[in-house]
Amino acid sequence: MPFIQIDVTRDGVTKAQKQELILGATQLLKDVLNKDFSLTHVIIREIDSDNWGLAGEQVTEIRKQINKQSNNA
Amino acid sequence: MPFIQIDVTRDGVTKAQKQELILGATQLLKDVLNKDFSLTHVIIREIDSDNWGLAGEQVTEIRKQINKQSNNA
Amino acid sequence: MPFIQIDVTRDGVTKAQKQELILGATQLLKDVLNKDFSLTHVIIREIDSDNWGLAGEQVTEIRKQINKQSNNA
Amino acid sequence: MPFIQIDVTRDGVTKAQKQELILGATQLLKDVLNKDFSLTHVIIREIDSDNWGLAGEQVTEIRKQINKQSNNA
Amino acid sequence: MPFIQIDVTRDGVTKAQKQELILGATQLLKDVLNKDFSLTHVIIREIDSDNWGLAGEQVTEIRKQINKQSNNA
Amino acid sequence: MPFIQIDVTRDGVTKAQKQELILGATQLLKDVLNKDFSLTHVIIREIDSDNWGLAGEQVTEIRKQINKQSNNA
Repeated sequence: MPFIQIDVTRDGVTKAQKQELILGATQLLKDVLNKDFSLTHVIIREIDSDNWGLAGEQVTEIRKQINKQSNNA
Repeated sequence: MPFIQIDVTRDGVTKAQKQELILGATQLLKDVLNKDFSLTHVIIREIDSDNWGLAGEQVTEIRKQINKQSNNA
Repeated sequence: MPFIQIDVTRDGVTKAQKQELILGATQLLKDVLNKDFSLTHVIIREIDSDNWGLAGEQVTEIRKQINKQSNNA
Repeated sequence: MPFIQIDVTRDGVTKAQKQELILGATQLLKDVLNKDFSLTHVIIREIDSDNWGLAGEQVTEIRKQINKQSNNA
Repeated sequence: MPFIQIDVTRDGVTKAQKQELILGATQLLKDVLNKDFSLTHVIIREIDSDNWGLAGEQVTEIRKQINKQSNNA
Repeated sequence: MPFIQIDVTRDGVTKAQKQELILGATQLLKDVLNKDFSLTHVIIREIDSDNWGLAGEQVTEIRKQINKQSNNA
């Protein structure tokens, strides 16, 4: 009966990558807890980087600063 | 104070169907637990079928296989 | 593939009431969106009334005030 | 390690408002529980008003009725 | 920035199994999306089997029936 | 209609601290988005430190290592 929700920023995750996440998470529950494949659900949520904050700042802005630093290096 | 979240795949659920889900879920909490209508919130999340996995596979692919089988029958 | 999460305060919801919620929610998804019974999951979360706030106040306190008013009436 | 999820209706929340929500929520966890800024994540979910119900009705419809009453007043 | 929530029934999952789930999920996000280990959070929710329903029935009851069938076989 | 969920590790958060979190989060939504106090719900989830992972490790273990380092310093 496991249910897994994976939240990532919306960054062009491809359909194939989503499939890898779904299969990998389902396999993990099988390996660790012997959960039946047919009962495991996985949901992937893609969150706009304006809507995700870390350390009090939008991920959008954190990434801009990282890029600027790389360019100046 | 109930809060209900309904996750379904994004399949063209109509506005009227959403209203039926909201009313039905609110009524259910009233019927079973006598919860006040005015305090019940319902959120419907529509998830792309690429982002929902069951039994290790994307719902998009599961449906393709079911359709293929129907066509071959 | 529906997934329904029902959040209520922890108030001695009985096992039979939980079963009614699960069946009712599953039936609702069948009635409105024709979702297959066997694919619908329902999770009930019971939240301590100290951990649920409404209008800026703990439900524990809101209920105390309602009880006091009833007693004074 | 706090994780905060803020659900609001999709009403044109601006990027600057999102930043205020993220910073404010992170500061709140610092002020009340002394949680380290760098470990707090905030996710803002914007929900279509057709997909949010209160008191058994879609927020879209609740708002229409409020607007009508304002216009008739 | 990934955030992963794993819902399982409360069945005596050991501390070591939880650690395997946490490490496995974090590794999965690293493998598929190259997400930095230090930014991935994992939360495991254990749900009482009375509070989880599948196909309109409590998992507690589903398991009783499976056990009865095994004993009769 | 906002709904806010605050996840923290279960570390003896007091009733008064929970009240501060609830009030602060409700005030934040009022300040930033002018959301009506009476419509804002807040739920606080307390997660066992065995069930929360960061960077691939249980918070329980991360804290043990931090404490050991402090003691050795």
